[in-house]
Amino acid sequence: MEQETLHVKGMSCGHCVSAVEGNVGEMRGVSDVKVNLGQGTVAVSYDKSDVTHAEIVDTIEDQGYDVG
Amino acid sequence: MEQETLHVKGMSCGHCVSAVEGNVGEMRGVSDVKVNLGQGTVAVSYDKSDVTHAEIVDTIEDQGYDVG
Repeated sequence: MEQETLHVKGMSCGHCVSAVEGNVGEMRGVSDVKVNLGQGTVAVSYDKSDVTHAEIVDTIEDQGYDVG
Repeated sequence: MEQETLHVKGMSCGHCVSAVEGNVGEMRGVSDVKVNLGQGTVAVSYDKSDVTHAEIVDTIEDQGYDVG
């Protein structure tokens, strides 16, 4: 199990939290995801044999946010 | 037909635009609603015989925003 904290720009409200947590949370291999709006971070726990860092980043960016 | 521009605090992203435009837009008597995120305004066209200013304000506040 991997645990990573990604820095994500553009998340500004509760809808953004729902969009990121909802979409990342339903990815196969992701066991936990938590957005911190104030810090602009997304903490993700996932199984590397099921999902990659790049796939998680893509999912967040597909929602219109900037990871990096 | 009335046309009013309300000042609304807390709208910060595209999801907020959708929440306000969607909920106000489906009210009976409202013929047009347009959010301007940069200015923090909601322009509404409505028929006073079908819907009141107060009802429109209530609908926006129910979405978690502050009108005034």
